[in-house]
Formats: sequence, C-alpha cells, structure tokens
Amino acid sequence: MDQTAKTAKQASIRLAAMGTDIKNRALAQIAAALKAAAGDIIAANKADLAAAENNHLAGPLLKRLKFDENKLADACAGIESLIKLDDPVGKTLGRTELDTGLELHKVTCPIGVIGIVFESRPDALVQISTLCLKSGNAALLKGGSEAEHTNKALAKVICEAGENTGLPAGWLALLETRDDVAEMLKADQYIDLIIPRGSNQFVRYIMDNTNIPVLGHADGICHVYIDREADLDMAEQIVVDSKCQYTAVCNAAETLLVDEKITGQFLPRIKTALEAESVEIRACQKTLAIIDAKPATEADWSTEYLDLIISVKVVADLDEAIEHINKYGSGHTDTIVTANKQSAETFMNFVDSANVFWNASTRFSDGFRYGLGAEVGISTNKIHARGPVGLDGLVIYKYKLLGTGQIVADYAQGKRKFTHRKMDNSS
Amino acid sequence: MDQTAKTAKQASIRLAAMGTDIKNRALAQIAAALKAAAGDIIAANKADLAAAENNHLAGPLLKRLKFDENKLADACAGIESLIKLDDPVGKTLGRTELDTGLELHKVTCPIGVIGIVFESRPDALVQISTLCLKSGNAALLKGGSEAEHTNKALAKVICEAGENTGLPAGWLALLETRDDVAEMLKADQYIDLIIPRGSNQFVRYIMDNTNIPVLGHADGICHVYIDREADLDMAEQIVVDSKCQYTAVCNAAETLLVDEKITGQFLPRIKTALEAESVEIRACQKTLAIIDAKPATEADWSTEYLDLIISVKVVADLDEAIEHINKYGSGHTDTIVTANKQSAETFMNFVDSANVFWNASTRFSDGFRYGLGAEVGISTNKIHARGPVGLDGLVIYKYKLLGTGQIVADYAQGKRKFTHRKMDNSS
Repeated sequence: MDQTAKTAKQASIRLAAMGTDIKNRALAQIAAALKAAAGDIIAANKADLAAAENNHLAGPLLKRLKFDENKLADACAGIESLIKLDDPVGKTLGRTELDTGLELHKVTCPIGVIGIVFESRPDALVQISTLCLKSGNAALLKGGSEAEHTNKALAKVICEAGENTGLPAGWLALLETRDDVAEMLKADQYIDLIIPRGSNQFVRYIMDNTNIPVLGHADGICHVYIDREADLDMAEQIVVDSKCQYTAVCNAAETLLVDEKITGQFLPRIKTALEAESVEIRACQKTLAIIDAKPATEADWSTEYLDLIISVKVVADLDEAIEHINKYGSGHTDTIVTANKQSAETFMNFVDSANVFWNASTRFSDGFRYGLGAEVGISTNKIHARGPVGLDGLVIYKYKLLGTGQIVADYAQGKRKFTHRKMDNSS
Repeated sequence: MDQTAKTAKQASIRLAAMGTDIKNRALAQIAAALKAAAGDIIAANKADLAAAENNHLAGPLLKRLKFDENKLADACAGIESLIKLDDPVGKTLGRTELDTGLELHKVTCPIGVIGIVFESRPDALVQISTLCLKSGNAALLKGGSEAEHTNKALAKVICEAGENTGLPAGWLALLETRDDVAEMLKADQYIDLIIPRGSNQFVRYIMDNTNIPVLGHADGICHVYIDREADLDMAEQIVVDSKCQYTAVCNAAETLLVDEKITGQFLPRIKTALEAESVEIRACQKTLAIIDAKPATEADWSTEYLDLIISVKVVADLDEAIEHINKYGSGHTDTIVTANKQSAETFMNFVDSANVFWNASTRFSDGFRYGLGAEVGISTNKIHARGPVGLDGLVIYKYKLLGTGQIVADYAQGKRKFTHRKMDNSS
C-alpha cells in the first residue's frame, strides 16, 4: 500500500503537467476499452451478483451492485460528455504586476492524489476515476468487497487504457483489502483528499478515522419551509416532490416546517397529499391539534429517514424556521416556499446550508441538474468545495511568480516600490 | 467553552448576512477604540513584558511580545486599509438558468466560526480578528500565556467596539485557559476552521490534535535552484536575498541546488558571497569536491534552519532538482534561476508547491508583497486556499436556487427540459 501511494504521488506530478489533448485521448481510449471488454466486465459482475444472492444481500443493494450493458453504456456516455467539458487545469484565476518585470499568476492545478472509497455501486468507480483523470489527479480506489470482481475488471481496463495512451504508471490503482483502507486513511504524506461514497455511517466512519481532508457529506437532513405567504398549490407540489420523488437519496426532504398562520388551510391538504403517496407523518404537538398523525419525538428532528416518513413541525415565523434548520439540519439543502421576495432572501441569507432554494424542490440539488456535468458527490464542507462538486472542485491553484532577478532587499530598503497593478487574465 | 463556541456559531449566522457598511463602520470604530485605549493596552503589555523578563524569556521572543505605540499605530493602519478592500462576501461567482424561471446563483459567504491559536505576537490578534470581521466570520481567539494581559486588553476593546456598532454578541471571544484550547480543537460541531500562527512544532501540534480543518503551514523548506543557463550575477543576488534578507521566516531559503554543469564557476563565488553574510554551508559530496565546507547529512535536506545556515547540493539536471524539491520540500516556495523559458515553465509546472518562482527571491512569497492586503498566514494546504491567504481565503460559497414552483418529477418524466444557459454574473 505504501509503495502504491508513493507511486501514485509520483504519477500525480506528471499528470499535473499533462495537456488537455492527452487527457482527452486517454478518456476516449478508456471508453473504447470498456466497450471492448464488455463481456469480461459483465461476467465479473455476474459472479459478484451470484455471490451476493448467496449471501442474501437485500434487493436495493443488489440493484446498486448490478453492472449490465445499460450501466456500461451510461458510463461510456458519461466519459464522452466529460471529454467535452473544459479542462479545469491551467486556468489563470488572476494576474498582478508586482513591479516592472515581476508578474504574479494565480493558476489552477490538480490537488494531487485522491483516495476514493465507495460502497457497492461499480458505476462510481468509472465516474470518479475519469473525473480525477480529466482534472489531472492520480486516484487510489477501494470498492466494497461485494463488488470485488466487477471493480477489478473495471479498474484493470481503465488503468491499462490510460497507461497505453501515455499516462504515467500508477496513475490509478485499486486497493484490495480492508487493511489497505485503514492504511490509506493514514497516508497523509501521499494522499491529499479522500472522497467517500456510500451510506451515512460509512462516510462518518471515514471522516472519524483520517486526518486527510474528506470531501462529501454524511447526513442529508433537508427541510421544506412553507411560509405564511406561500402559494399553497405550489407548496403541496414542492413538498410531495421533495419527499417522494426519490426517497432514498440525500437531497430528499425529511422535515416539513409550516408557518403557524396557515396551519388550518395547509396541514389537512398536505396530510391528504402525503398519505396518497403512503408517507407516514410524525408531527409536533401544534400539528396534532389540527391533523391526526403519529407524534414526533425530539429524535425525529435530526433523523434522516431515507424512506416514506416525514416529520412536520409548526413554527411561529420565518425566524423560528431558520433557527430550527440551522440547529437540526445538516447544511445540505433547504427550501422556502413563499411569494414574499424579502422573506425568501432572508431565508437564503441566514440558512447556513450549501444549497438554499426559493420555490423549488430540494431534489434539484444535484450536479447534473445544476449543469456541472458529472459530479464526484455533494459536499457539506465549509472549506474548498460545497454543494454538488464537479471538475472545479478537484483543482486548487498555485502562484507562479515570473521575475527578472528581483530581490526583496531592494523593496525593504525602499529602493524599489510595488505597483500591484491588476492585469487581465489572458496570457 | 462549549457555551462560548455555541454563541459564536449563533453570532456567525447573523454576521454572515451583515452588509459591508456595518462591517466597515465596526472596523473604523475598532481602530478608534484601540487608539483611545492605548494607555491601558500598553500598560497591560508592560506587565506581560515584566513577567516575561522575570521568566528569562529569550530576546527575540521578548521583541515579538512587545506591543508599543508603534505596533498599535501599525495595527490601526492595517485596519484602515482593510476597510478599503472589497467585501469578499456576497459576490456572485456564477449564474446559470436551469430552465425558464429557475435560476441558480453561486454566491460567496463566510466560512462560519474560525478558531485562531497564536503564540506570543499580540499584533496577530488584531490582524486576524479584523480579517475575520471583514469576511463575516465569528472568531474564537487563544493567545500565548506570556501575552495574557495584552491579549485581554486588546480583545476587550475590539469585542466591545464591535458590539457597540451592532455586531452580534459573542462575534469575538478570547479563550483563557490551556484546557479551552484542547476543547476548542474538539468542537467540530461549532468551529469550521482553525488557523494556527506560531512555530513549526506549535502548528504541527494543532494539526495532529484536531479533526477541524487547519489552514496554515508547519515547515517552510524553500529551495533556490540555479540552472545551467542562469545568469550567475542574478543567481548570486537571489541566493543571498532568499537566505539572508530575513532568516527567521518561513519563506527564507534553506537549500541551494546547483546544476552540475556550472559548479566550477558558481560554487566558489556563492561560497564567498554567503560567507560574507556569515552563512554556514552544509554541502553534499559533489559540492565538497569544489569548495571547502561542512559535510551535509541526510537530515539537512529536510531541515528548516531559520538561521544563517544553508544546505547545498549539486544536481545532474532540472529533473533531479524537481525530484529533490518534491521529495524534501514542504510545498511552500521554490525558485529557479535560469535564462531558459522552457526550463522555467517545466520547473513551475512540475514543482508541487504553493509558490513557484522564476528569477525572483523566495522572500516575495507574502500577502503584502502579492498585493492581497493583509494576510491570515501562508497555507501549504492543497484544499481551499494555498499560498498567502487574504480575505478571499476566509470565504466559501453557497448555491441559491430561485424557482417559481419547479419540481424534479417534471424533469424526470421528460415533461420539462433543463436549458443550463450560462448567464453573466451581474444580478
């Protein structure tokens, strides 16, 4: 493992300086190689699926584990669109003339080595490794043991196709054992960022067991707040979509907050609408005074159900809604439904979440819907990248200073003065 | 401590939504209040200085501890220039129309609560707390015990002047005990970022003892590489400036790398120049074949002397220089001296450091010299902010989605399509 990480670090230095052309050629080659190896990959996946069935893996997990012709076609289509996206590396973010003949350039560059740990979905392996390649990062991958054969087949094809196109050896490596993960989480001298993909408990385990920065999110406790000035038809649609359109995902709503002024009109109709979708309601005392439902406990306000359950709370006003969200939310995605622009702006400014919405479903919080192209995941971090993270979240910058022999002593002694003139970013 | 951090978190939500006007008024009020309290502050500092002398604190530490009329005037001038800088909060980084009536805005916002731990220099307290204020962040401060009275006096004035201008209570708090620091490093539910300022060992201790992201750097092992195509007069000047202009700082050079092709001409003259500045040379075997010096050990290549000592190594070529820097350097600042543009570009692209220079002294790596205004420190992180970090490094962004009732089901079912039209950033 130590040698693998060291090799990845060396590869990352060379990858960082690779042009867009060679990276795009490698991506095209990877898509072609994946198609050519379809038989092997699908056979490997069938072996994993058979083992999983023998081990009585639950239905939804089996579904995630499956990697068939359709999944492969989707993965290759993803690579094709990745080729079309701008290269995020080598962009000039700013140029300053410090003095005559002394120019400072702030230029984007890759982060370095990214460690990716994911649970059963093999699609994630293709998606994240190709995003790393396009952004010039080396990648160390560790998938779930239940997808062992599929992951091995995919990684082998991707790794070799990349190396055959001229990428440095070791630019991508698949870790095989659980011990490798424990070692990876300690390898902070080689690995610059960890991206975990999987369940809350899994992500939290990763976060609690490494000093390497982690990009991602554990919980997704998203709120819909219905303001007193909401259009109630719109409110009903947004609540149902946020809760029911896909319940098992991080941007689905878990708690509905309703302004006290409209409980009489809104609560009965939303109960009908949610129950039509088989949603169980867990309600606060004030809600229970209006509609019949299961009483909520304190724990409900901080529970991510990922299921057909919603907690409902009546709040006195916008301020109480904001306070509740900042206290119990997970900083992921929260939406207000209101016709009042001022209230919407207050909500969006004071709710401390990566994604704050006005009159739209929480389910829009997604890299594809945002138009970012592919995403490595959704981050609730307050550092580096937040919300849906695409290619831009996989780069940092370096400062390049281009001089003609300048020394600091001349400026310290007042012989020369800084001009600090902003220049345009074209070089 | 827990209550202080909780209050800071609440204050940070209100600070985040405060306009530029009120933040600038608070900064002006703080500068005025510091001037008005000059007597108390300087008296407090005299008490600290007297105690430090009794405890036989070393000369340089005493100098850093001193906070007199001049230091106060500098601190207030710093605040005046901070007022003139653009507010980094509320800038629109991007706008995308996702569909008719559905706009996504990526807008800068503060990070939240920043914990600052610094050693003896009380100036750091003023500088960092006002930078946090301008960027809308709440701050928890902990200074060294030897500056206890000075820090208390400064924090009281700054905190009260801010609150009197309308900043939320608890926007700034001074922690008092060593136990408070240990608790702060654990308070990841309230604190979003830790900025340590002090010696290497101190910064490393902080990094090793918290799961909260840390912005800063431990070592500053900076290199000067003299290429075979260097102008040797320029090379000599840059080496002397990088090593000697101020030895006790992170951007001073610690290692000189010399291309094998020019050792005969360059090594004797640089020995003379460095010895004229009383610099001790620790040299590799190939260097010792040309000049007389103390032999270097393996440990020298990764030692930050912060003193009049330099290690010197002969390298076969540019590639070996890059490899040495990436292996032994600390990712801080490295410079190449060469007349060859291609070699300079290779060096700047392959050296994996925050600051990579061509024909300029390593000592230019500094927020003031870069024209950033004030700086909170220099970061060798590969995440978020790198190199000298000013106001822009104290903000992150949030996504605001402005809809008119859109739900995801309509897009999933193909009833509506995303337009993903890039808009200009003016709102």
